[in-house]
Amino acid sequence: MSAPRCDRTRAWGALRGHFEAHGRDLDLREAFERDPQRFERFTLQAPEVFADLSKNRWDLATQHFLIDLARECAIEDRRDAMFAGEPINATEGRAALHTALRAPRGAAPHGDEVHAVLDAMLAFAESVRARAGDPYTDVVNIGIGGSDLGPRMAVAALEPFAHRGLRLHFVSNVDGHDLTAVLRPLRPETTLFVVASKTFTTQETMANAHAARAWFDAGMPAGADRSQHFVGVTTNLRAAADFGITKTFGFWDWVGGRFSLWSAIGLPIAMAVGAERFRELLAGAHAMDRHFAETPLERNLPVQLALLDVWYRNFHGFGSRSVAPYHQGLSRLPAYLQQLEMESNGKGVDLAGESLPFGTSPVVWGEPGTNGQHAYFQMLHQGTDVIPVEFIAVRQATHELADQQRKLLANCLAQSQALMLGKSTALAAAEHAPTASTTFDRELLARHRSFPGNRPSTTLLLDTLTPRSLGALIALYEHRVFVSGALWGINSFDQWGVELGKALCSALLPRFATRDVSGLDASTAGLLQRLLAR
Amino acid sequence: MSAPRCDRTRAWGALRGHFEAHGRDLDLREAFERDPQRFERFTLQAPEVFADLSKNRWDLATQHFLIDLARECAIEDRRDAMFAGEPINATEGRAALHTALRAPRGAAPHGDEVHAVLDAMLAFAESVRARAGDPYTDVVNIGIGGSDLGPRMAVAALEPFAHRGLRLHFVSNVDGHDLTAVLRPLRPETTLFVVASKTFTTQETMANAHAARAWFDAGMPAGADRSQHFVGVTTNLRAAADFGITKTFGFWDWVGGRFSLWSAIGLPIAMAVGAERFRELLAGAHAMDRHFAETPLERNLPVQLALLDVWYRNFHGFGSRSVAPYHQGLSRLPAYLQQLEMESNGKGVDLAGESLPFGTSPVVWGEPGTNGQHAYFQMLHQGTDVIPVEFIAVRQATHELADQQRKLLANCLAQSQALMLGKSTALAAAEHAPTASTTFDRELLARHRSFPGNRPSTTLLLDTLTPRSLGALIALYEHRVFVSGALWGINSFDQWGVELGKALCSALLPRFATRDVSGLDASTAGLLQRLLAR
Repeated sequence: MSAPRCDRTRAWGALRGHFEAHGRDLDLREAFERDPQRFERFTLQAPEVFADLSKNRWDLATQHFLIDLARECAIEDRRDAMFAGEPINATEGRAALHTALRAPRGAAPHGDEVHAVLDAMLAFAESVRARAGDPYTDVVNIGIGGSDLGPRMAVAALEPFAHRGLRLHFVSNVDGHDLTAVLRPLRPETTLFVVASKTFTTQETMANAHAARAWFDAGMPAGADRSQHFVGVTTNLRAAADFGITKTFGFWDWVGGRFSLWSAIGLPIAMAVGAERFRELLAGAHAMDRHFAETPLERNLPVQLALLDVWYRNFHGFGSRSVAPYHQGLSRLPAYLQQLEMESNGKGVDLAGESLPFGTSPVVWGEPGTNGQHAYFQMLHQGTDVIPVEFIAVRQATHELADQQRKLLANCLAQSQALMLGKSTALAAAEHAPTASTTFDRELLARHRSFPGNRPSTTLLLDTLTPRSLGALIALYEHRVFVSGALWGINSFDQWGVELGKALCSALLPRFATRDVSGLDASTAGLLQRLLAR
Repeated sequence: MSAPRCDRTRAWGALRGHFEAHGRDLDLREAFERDPQRFERFTLQAPEVFADLSKNRWDLATQHFLIDLARECAIEDRRDAMFAGEPINATEGRAALHTALRAPRGAAPHGDEVHAVLDAMLAFAESVRARAGDPYTDVVNIGIGGSDLGPRMAVAALEPFAHRGLRLHFVSNVDGHDLTAVLRPLRPETTLFVVASKTFTTQETMANAHAARAWFDAGMPAGADRSQHFVGVTTNLRAAADFGITKTFGFWDWVGGRFSLWSAIGLPIAMAVGAERFRELLAGAHAMDRHFAETPLERNLPVQLALLDVWYRNFHGFGSRSVAPYHQGLSRLPAYLQQLEMESNGKGVDLAGESLPFGTSPVVWGEPGTNGQHAYFQMLHQGTDVIPVEFIAVRQATHELADQQRKLLANCLAQSQALMLGKSTALAAAEHAPTASTTFDRELLARHRSFPGNRPSTTLLLDTLTPRSLGALIALYEHRVFVSGALWGINSFDQWGVELGKALCSALLPRFATRDVSGLDASTAGLLQRLLAR
């Protein structure tokens, strides 16, 4: 790809000048005063997702220069190359075709293979659902990273649509306390295990799978049919067969782990909500794919979000972004996004191997809405760093507690409002503060009770949280990460940074038996000796 | 308190000069080469917690200047003032006496009241445990912030010690999906609700409590004895009685929400693990209190951790810290610490009301150990920002899966080792990379596969995860936060930053009925209109 890296464009220089002249000091309150159309100008409707970008510290000139930046970096060409299945994951020589997993038959590369596996996977999910209660009451997904975070997040999000006779569990950590706690209330004869590992060699997953098999064997009569209780999502049929698994669903090297919930890795989702709703999840994602592929950059939501990310990270210098889903079902979305964003774009060299002179992925973090308010929102409002917040609200609930839904939404709006508006010391001084000390100076207290304001946020609004809207939302994040990665000039689809730890772990493991600490740095040696103490 | 703020000490200037001359460029690998005693020098044993601080970017000179800083800021006097019950929460005119909650009878202020409530609370917890199965099978704690995060974290951590006949649930979010999902499999006649709110007015908690009561009433015969199914942790006896709760446990205004798990707020923990183990939790915390109160600053673990926090935040400029508990039971520790640290120290003015010219609380974030490795560790290893990592390892497991415990610990050590050692491009070039593209230039690939190293981490080591060690660990964090807050000159015990959002929410709520958007900023008005669309 011959397009320049973001910092080598003309637009980058223009943005630098613009930031110094107008960007750094832009005041949101004044911006709304100045432009009565600001809300209309900076809101976008994408499939299933309405986005309010107006409470961000940018203006039309910023947006203009950012779009220039995207053009100079040939974002549209890169996007098209991704959809076309070109090997954009260059270091591994692979395509990144997660979009093909949710395309209608015939509409994307590899359609035949994709739909063959999808049909088989969904048929199997339905057969398990049909056997809910007899014999299956519990499904345990054993996987880690992309084989865990996506399905876990989606099953939680779609809980109101889930089969009531089938409990879904997820085990990921190699820590035996994870599996042990999940298995304790279960019975082998009513449990189905899904072992999800592309290579069937992932250390954590295989350790848990072997322990699960031992638990199963110990709890069943000799000769019990294990094949009815273990299923694999893997491409390594041989290893799965050696393990005792005959039923497997495959996927492909052009599906990265963190982009794989649309593939057979989504089996637990399909078991929970059924085949039809799983197809709606795919349809929602596909609708967002088309939005991304076909919409001009000016109205293209993943592009606009990525441009804001670059603006905040590389000009304002903000080091993190807080994600605040005002929906309990999205409680695991931040953990999912941590992998999606930080594993994709947490990199220090560009595709040409050059060290990057600017920041890439921010830290992405957060907890569900009102819980966060009672935890770390203090810092978002009054801390010394500016942390952009991404609110996600869902208009309609699936429950009948209308009063709580109103309170939830009012809280969401109030927080973005408070971040922006702030409160002056004078205003604080005029108020009564119920818990204030009677002896603490009133003027002084007002400084503690004032808020700087002008803190930016984005609000994403869904009408309902359904398989379709969830699919669109996740695809939105995928494409946003792709665009910011492309602007930064990095390969968002490899993850070489996980290799060193794995290698060092393999080298350390035998030392737990030999008790040999020679050749290690003094800290690692000292810790190992303590761990080995009897 | 007349002690100077950190940046107005002589030590601060010395640290500045030291940082420029030696600190910024300190290389951990060289530091270990240079000093064979580095591990011994920078490790500390506190009650229940061993700490390896040697993989941090400091040396003896740094530590020396930092201790000078602590002295100049009169940390010991401030600490003593806290233990003595002086009103160090000056803006609210209150003491911060969470340490009194775990002191033996007669050893701290308010001992009589504390132990009277503790005895009553534990007796009640035991009476519920004695009735596990008949009638109680499920306990639902309704609370938010400090009335949720602490008990939730501790109950998860102590799961191996929990009563097997009593399931503990936690509902916090005002989002009705939270309560709805928890209640769905429960039955009123076997459920006990704990409503935890100091004032009995917390919006989220009262909304959930009322919905829970309605659910109970709807599922029980008319006239069923509600008093056997609802208990309150509150100081507002009148409001609790109006709600229909007769059994309550109180606490005091000198216990902040985020420091309250040691009080009656810990009732769910006591129900899970029993009175004796709850007392062990308190004893572990008290042992750490004594360590903090009595140990010279040079060997005082909470002080040393806080000094490193200041060094990283204010000299190195690191904006976040990642917490990596290598124990599944500590999966909610990061969420707990987010409140403890960011609500305590996420502030922008000092006690004198002056705006701070330096950064305070970093963003604290993380997921359990090996899960994080398969998610965001990519960025920790190869991202553009340095993010100090705090590893927490537990030597002995409570389960029998010895192989998994070894793998867990080997992973933990390997990660801190990898962060420090890194890997040169030359070394990477000499290796075979299984998934590498055959056409991608080998030298170029090595740059993608190299690691800068010199990334700092701390490892905290517990022998076992028990009530006692958990108590010590949490108290360690509490005191560390107090010390860094004191150095920064802020009041770590108020939280005025949560008030504005609450006030704006109250002002927005009626608009959901009136549908009036006048007077609002255009963004809030526009979003509200969309939410109100029929």
